[in-house]
Amino acid sequence: MNAIELDEYLADCRRLTLTEIEAIIPKPSPATPVLYQLMLDYPLRQAKALRPALCIASCRALGGPLEAVLRSAAILELYHNAFLIHDDVEDGSESRRDRPTLHAMHGSPIAVNVGDAMLALALEPLLDNMRLLGLGKALRIMQAVARMARESTEGQAIELHWIRTGDWRLSDHDYIRMVYKKTAWYTFITPMLIGGIVANSAPEQLATLRKFAALLGIAFQIQDDVLNLTGEGDVYGKEIAGDLWEGKHTLILMHALRAASSDEREQACTILQRARPSSRHAPKPSAFTEVLAALRRRGELTAAAHEAITAALNDATADHGAGEKTADDIQYLMRLIERHGSIEYARAIARHFARQADAVLGRAPWLQPSIHRGFLQGIVDFVVQRDR
Amino acid sequence: MNAIELDEYLADCRRLTLTEIEAIIPKPSPATPVLYQLMLDYPLRQAKALRPALCIASCRALGGPLEAVLRSAAILELYHNAFLIHDDVEDGSESRRDRPTLHAMHGSPIAVNVGDAMLALALEPLLDNMRLLGLGKALRIMQAVARMARESTEGQAIELHWIRTGDWRLSDHDYIRMVYKKTAWYTFITPMLIGGIVANSAPEQLATLRKFAALLGIAFQIQDDVLNLTGEGDVYGKEIAGDLWEGKHTLILMHALRAASSDEREQACTILQRARPSSRHAPKPSAFTEVLAALRRRGELTAAAHEAITAALNDATADHGAGEKTADDIQYLMRLIERHGSIEYARAIARHFARQADAVLGRAPWLQPSIHRGFLQGIVDFVVQRDR
Repeated sequence: MNAIELDEYLADCRRLTLTEIEAIIPKPSPATPVLYQLMLDYPLRQAKALRPALCIASCRALGGPLEAVLRSAAILELYHNAFLIHDDVEDGSESRRDRPTLHAMHGSPIAVNVGDAMLALALEPLLDNMRLLGLGKALRIMQAVARMARESTEGQAIELHWIRTGDWRLSDHDYIRMVYKKTAWYTFITPMLIGGIVANSAPEQLATLRKFAALLGIAFQIQDDVLNLTGEGDVYGKEIAGDLWEGKHTLILMHALRAASSDEREQACTILQRARPSSRHAPKPSAFTEVLAALRRRGELTAAAHEAITAALNDATADHGAGEKTADDIQYLMRLIERHGSIEYARAIARHFARQADAVLGRAPWLQPSIHRGFLQGIVDFVVQRDR
Repeated sequence: MNAIELDEYLADCRRLTLTEIEAIIPKPSPATPVLYQLMLDYPLRQAKALRPALCIASCRALGGPLEAVLRSAAILELYHNAFLIHDDVEDGSESRRDRPTLHAMHGSPIAVNVGDAMLALALEPLLDNMRLLGLGKALRIMQAVARMARESTEGQAIELHWIRTGDWRLSDHDYIRMVYKKTAWYTFITPMLIGGIVANSAPEQLATLRKFAALLGIAFQIQDDVLNLTGEGDVYGKEIAGDLWEGKHTLILMHALRAASSDEREQACTILQRARPSSRHAPKPSAFTEVLAALRRRGELTAAAHEAITAALNDATADHGAGEKTADDIQYLMRLIERHGSIEYARAIARHFARQADAVLGRAPWLQPSIHRGFLQGIVDFVVQRDR
């Protein structure tokens, strides 16, 4: 499947999933005028809808019917959007999918509550699956969702703990285990397993799907880390080098630190320990410093007074500036990464995992030749070649 | 049941529930060194554990066995503590149960993730209930939890929407419907319904439990609002008058606004529209303005330049200072409330709902005379007499 066909397949799945989500989310009532409207905000923004597509493709390539899997695909997308809302609050992100984040528009209390309400609402269609699929399948899907939620919050906890403690004595293996939990279960394994469960797959088929999805999920996250440093802002849709500002542990940065001299490593670790600047609450000094500069130009301010005022302003905002990363800090890390070829290193490892996934797919003749198998095959290339 | 016996009953239920929670939460492993430890933080702090006690008492007063209900009681407490963690992040609260909040100690990203992980973890014992209670009861309990999560996030959404839009044209009826959703379902109705389901109650018994719990839940929230204004900090354990700082809609404040003159009402609404001061991120301008004043005194700054700089500084920090509530503002609201007897008004309404709950209990002979029925009876008095 080529890139255009892949996009069409994703778009078709997205449209079907959105219709299902709109059926799950209650209509706004006088009692709850905005809650259900806000729940639709993120799902309706432009997105790949990769998780529902993987779920639908796995089900259909195994001979399962579309109608049976749509509700579960919608539940996965609902969970995903709920976690995105919470992630954005956690990270203080300003924009998501080219628009302001939910908390930027409505405040954090409303955003956290909308996320919680979406997680709560997902319980009802999970129970409703019993009518649609029978008790056995519905229960196995619930167990898969419970496992997904546990694995991804554990993966997230490991990553946040590394950031919090500034621990950089980690191996590539530690990283791969973390993203296996954080990303692979959530984005690949669970969607594909649920597709397989709906299609009534045999245990060994599910085991193969899981293996394929795990390898692909790891490759996907490594490529995501690469895009975070190399992507173009308007294509990638996220802040460039955000991972460096946040001090996230990536194969790229870990490789650069290993390859660096001990002086460089010390300097890089010092930088990484610094907090991300808290842009939202800091005063806006640029307009203020312009006023000072204008006064100075007009001779209404002596050089000494200008200096005294600037120093006092720096003191007054010291809460914000102390120990915070600067653009120079990020430049330093970027140069280290470039000098040691760390991006190429990470790309090679992503390709290695994608090739392994490809080999697993080659040993799964029971995934029937079809547009659906073609999509799964196409995703292998997409994962390491994508720019968004 | 007197107050001492009531406290003993609560303490017994709390001990049993904690043992169960410790069995549900996995032991810390090298892979997830802190996540499961942090999950236990809030549950292990001193708390009433009202929800598990209501669940256990309902089950046992209806003849159900203790062993059968403990897991569900623990799930309710797990949900409750997860929502408390998220509430504290939403409200930017600094302390909870006499200790720093989870996000104050570990940062918001870790706190939001721990809450999400607790909600995720609660799914597994809900499924596990099937082995313990059989399919039918386990499913009904899951439906009850789904309903609880939906009602309480809807109630929360209504309240946050009122705060956000500054809408004060509300009737007591609007308030009662909001707290019925926000508080009664979450704290009283669902715990008691689940106790009844485990005990195999008849539909009309469940309907009576639900009615009793709804009336009691409304009384409980009104009394909570009263304590927020009248409580002693170290007994109540929350910030005094926090509801006024947050601009929350309570029967008390709504009554005071209705009783006030139109001038007073206008002044009060202006105050309520002001934001809560954001203490932590504000710069410290006082040292800075002193530097300016010193420069001005020494003649190094013209009056015009001084004025221009001060105006620019005000612009630069407008995000923080403008439109924030002051202690005087809160005093104004408190005096309005005292002058119009609004606290006594709310207390009378709480007593009215508690009396109705008492009457419902009087018509439920099938709740067997026992320490468990005694606890439910005792809770009626506790709800309107409590100081914590």
